[in-house]
Amino acid sequence: MQKDQGTGRVEQFSDGVFAIAITLLVLQIKLPSQAAVEQRGLAHLLATLWPSYLAIITSFVTILMIWVKHHWMFTLIQKSDHAFLYWNGLLLFFITFLPFPTALLAEYLLHPEAKVAANLYTGTVFAISLSFKGLWWHATKDKRLLAVHANSATKIEAKQITKLDQYVPLFYFVVFGVSFLFGGVSVALCLFLALFFAYREWLTNR
Amino acid sequence: MQKDQGTGRVEQFSDGVFAIAITLLVLQIKLPSQAAVEQRGLAHLLATLWPSYLAIITSFVTILMIWVKHHWMFTLIQKSDHAFLYWNGLLLFFITFLPFPTALLAEYLLHPEAKVAANLYTGTVFAISLSFKGLWWHATKDKRLLAVHANSATKIEAKQITKLDQYVPLFYFVVFGVSFLFGGVSVALCLFLALFFAYREWLTNR
Amino acid sequence: MQKDQGTGRVEQFSDGVFAIAITLLVLQIKLPSQAAVEQRGLAHLLATLWPSYLAIITSFVTILMIWVKHHWMFTLIQKSDHAFLYWNGLLLFFITFLPFPTALLAEYLLHPEAKVAANLYTGTVFAISLSFKGLWWHATKDKRLLAVHANSATKIEAKQITKLDQYVPLFYFVVFGVSFLFGGVSVALCLFLALFFAYREWLTNR
Amino acid sequence: MQKDQGTGRVEQFSDGVFAIAITLLVLQIKLPSQAAVEQRGLAHLLATLWPSYLAIITSFVTILMIWVKHHWMFTLIQKSDHAFLYWNGLLLFFITFLPFPTALLAEYLLHPEAKVAANLYTGTVFAISLSFKGLWWHATKDKRLLAVHANSATKIEAKQITKLDQYVPLFYFVVFGVSFLFGGVSVALCLFLALFFAYREWLTNR
Repeated sequence: MQKDQGTGRVEQFSDGVFAIAITLLVLQIKLPSQAAVEQRGLAHLLATLWPSYLAIITSFVTILMIWVKHHWMFTLIQKSDHAFLYWNGLLLFFITFLPFPTALLAEYLLHPEAKVAANLYTGTVFAISLSFKGLWWHATKDKRLLAVHANSATKIEAKQITKLDQYVPLFYFVVFGVSFLFGGVSVALCLFLALFFAYREWLTNR
Repeated sequence: MQKDQGTGRVEQFSDGVFAIAITLLVLQIKLPSQAAVEQRGLAHLLATLWPSYLAIITSFVTILMIWVKHHWMFTLIQKSDHAFLYWNGLLLFFITFLPFPTALLAEYLLHPEAKVAANLYTGTVFAISLSFKGLWWHATKDKRLLAVHANSATKIEAKQITKLDQYVPLFYFVVFGVSFLFGGVSVALCLFLALFFAYREWLTNR
Repeated sequence: MQKDQGTGRVEQFSDGVFAIAITLLVLQIKLPSQAAVEQRGLAHLLATLWPSYLAIITSFVTILMIWVKHHWMFTLIQKSDHAFLYWNGLLLFFITFLPFPTALLAEYLLHPEAKVAANLYTGTVFAISLSFKGLWWHATKDKRLLAVHANSATKIEAKQITKLDQYVPLFYFVVFGVSFLFGGVSVALCLFLALFFAYREWLTNR
Repeated sequence: MQKDQGTGRVEQFSDGVFAIAITLLVLQIKLPSQAAVEQRGLAHLLATLWPSYLAIITSFVTILMIWVKHHWMFTLIQKSDHAFLYWNGLLLFFITFLPFPTALLAEYLLHPEAKVAANLYTGTVFAISLSFKGLWWHATKDKRLLAVHANSATKIEAKQITKLDQYVPLFYFVVFGVSFLFGGVSVALCLFLALFFAYREWLTNR
């Protein structure tokens, strides 16, 4: 593959994976059974599904935040090479995996073993943040995949992203650690971090 | 992200989500079990699935109508910024959520607790209409995301959309209210409104 | 929407729906249960799933054939209008619905009530062929959506498509009729017709 | 269809299918039931799901490797004809089918009948490699679908791909044979081959 090939199809394939992963989340919510509805009422049962709602909202916001960042990165990246496709593939693997820990969390958030579900969930999000860092590192090392004559605006913006995201994997590593102590808190932190990163990017790009 | 970036990838990602949400609807129809078929016959059982058909047709027409409008809007919008991505993300969240109330409605439309299912369904559609209004408001405020030298035709068309959709959230709020009184009627109104909006847009654009 | 808008996003959205519908088919195959495997062996059980394989192959070939034709049509269509989006939406509705009759067929092809499943299946395919004809009719009436200065090659090719597909809905109507007499035969005819149309198009375009 | 039509929509449709197939894999992992968790603990149960993880990782890497190669091929292919669409359709059929043997493998890898599951799995991967070869053969025979004035760089690169992939179906045929003797080993070989092909392409394209 010649290095000067564009990135259109990588974006297209990635967008497909992001879009499907984000849309499959809702399939993880279990429909209340007719038998249970007879006993406890539909409204009550829908309310007790709140761990499902929390889990899919956290995953939705996390994936959306990654997609927005992916989208921003690709406005700067002009080329693609094989190693880049594999880094992107690694990121997409963890993205497609996320619906499983999400479903696990929805089922076991109120269970005595909630910590185990939270370990897997926060561990997956940590893995997403690491592979994202690897992707960006590969793309920007020696300005490898930026435009050949990247103007200084592009370079400054690339440095800005690098700086903004410097500690993201560290944050998620801490959250992963927290999940061994407090399962529910670690999930809430995931949601908080995703919203915080979104807010910070909005501030930066106003 | 520079403000003059195009909207190609936002459209691509959104199209993916719309397409998947609209295609997942059919998975909500439960296959009649062999045991039930022995007793009551397949044709009869397929006929008793009509609440499923009604629910998926209503959701299909609603999502399609939103997609057509989204498509129309993006013929006028030339740029994208971060806040726009988040507004679009909020819209997509409710779109991806819709298959859940659709499944709930398919299961409980003939049940004494149909109103609860209709509340969630019409509430979700109301939320879709609100986030759509927010998206359009953000894009058109001070002509923010229209073409820099938007010609007057674009401006007139943008105003036309604003005017056409002025009361859409209000309509859906009323439908949401109706769902507390008559569950089935509120769903029928959702279907009627989606068809009506489609018809009105066709009239406007003939 | 101005009539001279391109068709890129309609194709993109339709491709999404086609791709998802065609990929969901495999989810309709039921995994043999461990209990059944103990009794009868996995190889034997996989062989008894042949109605599932027949159903998904027929649906796959049918959807693929429609996609190829859709793709061909859009090389001639240059514009889009609202009514066109609705015709296309109607086609996509029946495409997204197809996995349900496919699953029904997989389950009931060897059942005494196979005819009912075949009715729904062939009826859906007949509806697909009708909405496809409507879409093409709308696009080509008065050369409405062809290029403004459609050259004669385009016009000749458009006429060729019209002529090739003249009797397609009629064929499927006959197949629908056959399904009331012989369930299995009507499904085999669906597969045969899809393969035959693909072969004929290949002959025409060699 | 005129032969000089581009390949944009074929790539788009294929990307959709690849993206969906790769994202559906995770749905094949069965959530541990609450009853089993009471008895044996969630962490233990998640560990016993390793055949599921192995199966989805193998399928993910295989599909990703095919996508990367598909992507590379399409940087050289400039045109499309009907037979090409059918070859591509055949490839996509086996790609969409792969989640079924993947689920079968996840369920039966530790079962006495693991070989049967491995037969179907490796057989499907073999079929993917054959249809991929057919696709490439059709595209490059007499430089049929390469650019009309394909420069020598393109021709050299096309020959390079042909040479690299010469024995791929043969390798997978051997793996298919192995699956009749050692089920688990044949799956491990599939994973190894996909990683090896990815590594080799990375070497070639550094």
